[in-house]
Amino acid sequence: MSRYEEFTIEGRNEVIEAFRSGKTIDRLFILDGAGDGPIQTIKREAKKHNVRIDFVSKVRLDQLSESGKHQGVIAYMAAYEYASVDDILDAARAKNEDPFVFLLDNIEDPHNLGAIIRTANLAGAHGVIIPKNRAVGLTATVAKASAGALNYTPVAKVTNISKTIEELKKEGMWFVCADMDGSIMYDLNLTGPIGVVIGSEGEGVGRLVKDKCDFIASIPMKGDIDSLNASVAAGVLAYEIVRQRIKKQ
Amino acid sequence: MSRYEEFTIEGRNEVIEAFRSGKTIDRLFILDGAGDGPIQTIKREAKKHNVRIDFVSKVRLDQLSESGKHQGVIAYMAAYEYASVDDILDAARAKNEDPFVFLLDNIEDPHNLGAIIRTANLAGAHGVIIPKNRAVGLTATVAKASAGALNYTPVAKVTNISKTIEELKKEGMWFVCADMDGSIMYDLNLTGPIGVVIGSEGEGVGRLVKDKCDFIASIPMKGDIDSLNASVAAGVLAYEIVRQRIKKQ
Repeated sequence: MSRYEEFTIEGRNEVIEAFRSGKTIDRLFILDGAGDGPIQTIKREAKKHNVRIDFVSKVRLDQLSESGKHQGVIAYMAAYEYASVDDILDAARAKNEDPFVFLLDNIEDPHNLGAIIRTANLAGAHGVIIPKNRAVGLTATVAKASAGALNYTPVAKVTNISKTIEELKKEGMWFVCADMDGSIMYDLNLTGPIGVVIGSEGEGVGRLVKDKCDFIASIPMKGDIDSLNASVAAGVLAYEIVRQRIKKQ
Repeated sequence: MSRYEEFTIEGRNEVIEAFRSGKTIDRLFILDGAGDGPIQTIKREAKKHNVRIDFVSKVRLDQLSESGKHQGVIAYMAAYEYASVDDILDAARAKNEDPFVFLLDNIEDPHNLGAIIRTANLAGAHGVIIPKNRAVGLTATVAKASAGALNYTPVAKVTNISKTIEELKKEGMWFVCADMDGSIMYDLNLTGPIGVVIGSEGEGVGRLVKDKCDFIASIPMKGDIDSLNASVAAGVLAYEIVRQRIKKQ
C-alpha cells in the first residue's frame, strides 16, 4: 500500500500555478540570487502560506530536479490518498475486530498529528478521522512524524466531527473523549467498538463534540501544570484501551 | 519556584562573546539590512549553531530591547538552574513517596524532551535525569514544549547514566527501561521506588544502560511500523506506573 507520496513541481509558472490553485506546498528550493518578477511572486506566496524556502546553488537544484527544467525553482508537495470513514470500518471488519478509531478535533501541530497517526498504527486502531477545516492536513512534516504509519493507517477527512460521531453511533460505536472533568479512565469500560476523541492543543475537545461523547475519560494528573501534550494524552488513553482489550481476551 | 528564565543579550560584541564562550543562544533578532563585519560574524556563528535569525525593523528591535543599546542585534537565551540527583530524591522524601524518576538516555529532539518533562510533572514523578553529553539541553524550545513544567519538575544533568543507575540502586531503587524485547509492561510489578529509562529517538536505550536495568518493559505493538514517538512511549510507560500505584493504594 502506498497512500502517501512526495513529489516535486518544477518551473516558475508551475509553482505559481500550484500556489494559486490552493495546493499545499511543503518546501521550496530557489536559486540563490534569483530575484526577477516570477521569483518575487513565488517568495510572496511562500511567505503568505508560511512555506520554508531554501536558497541553493544551481548545482544543488540540478541534483534535486527530476524534469531537468527547474528554471531556478523546485517545490515539494505531498499527495495523500484520503480514505473514507467506510474504509476504516471495513478495515476493522476485515480483521474481525471491534472498530477502534481516533477522531481528532482540530489538532494543529503537524508533529502531534504525525505522532498520533503513529500511535494509532501501533495501538492497533483501524483509522484516524480529522476535520476538513482549520486543523493541519497531511503535509510532509506529518508524514515524517508518523514514521511511516501514514502508509498503513487510513486517515479520513470529514466536514463535521459531531455529525460523524452521530452516524457512527448508529453503527454501534461508543465514543470517549479525553478531558479533565471526566471519570478516571481506569474506571471506565473502554472495550467494545470505540472512537477516541482527542481535542486541540490549546482548547481541548469542543463543546459540541464533547456533548456527543458517551464517556469523558480523565487521565489522572498529579502535577502543577494543566495538561499533557496532545499526542502524549492520545497515547496514554489509547493504551488504556489496549490494556483493557488484552485483559478481556 | 523559578528554575527557568529567558533573558536577552544585546549588542554586537556581547552576542559574539556569548557564542564564543559556548553559551546556547536560542534565537537572534538582527536589524534588517545590517551587514557590517560584526553582523557577518554573528550570522556565521548563528549558521554554525543552527540558530534561527529574524531580520526585523529598528522599531521592533527597540521594542524588544531591555537595555536600549542593542546596536542592531538581540539574542535570546535560556538560563536554567539544574537540580542535583539528591534534590530529586529529597523531593520524593518530602512528599513521603517512593521515588519515581525519569532517566533519558540521549533524547535529541527538544519537543520530545519538553513533552517528557511535562509528562513527568503530571504523572507525579519527582524529577528527570539527563546526560551531560550529546543529548539536547534545556533551551527555550524545551521550556515551551514543557508547558511550564520546567519550573516545577527538577532536572539533573549527570556525566554517566549507567553510573547514576548503579548509585541509585544502592538507595533501593529499581530500574525499568522501555524496549521491544522485554516483558509486556502489564505483567511487571512497577510499584515501589522506580526509575524509568527512555532511550533516544533513533537508537533506543544504549546497551550499557540497558544491562543495568532490572526490568525491560515492552509496550504492546500491533501495527506495521517499529516504535512509538519517544515522548509518547515515555507517557504510556509512565502511566502504566501511575495505574499500578493507584491500584496498590
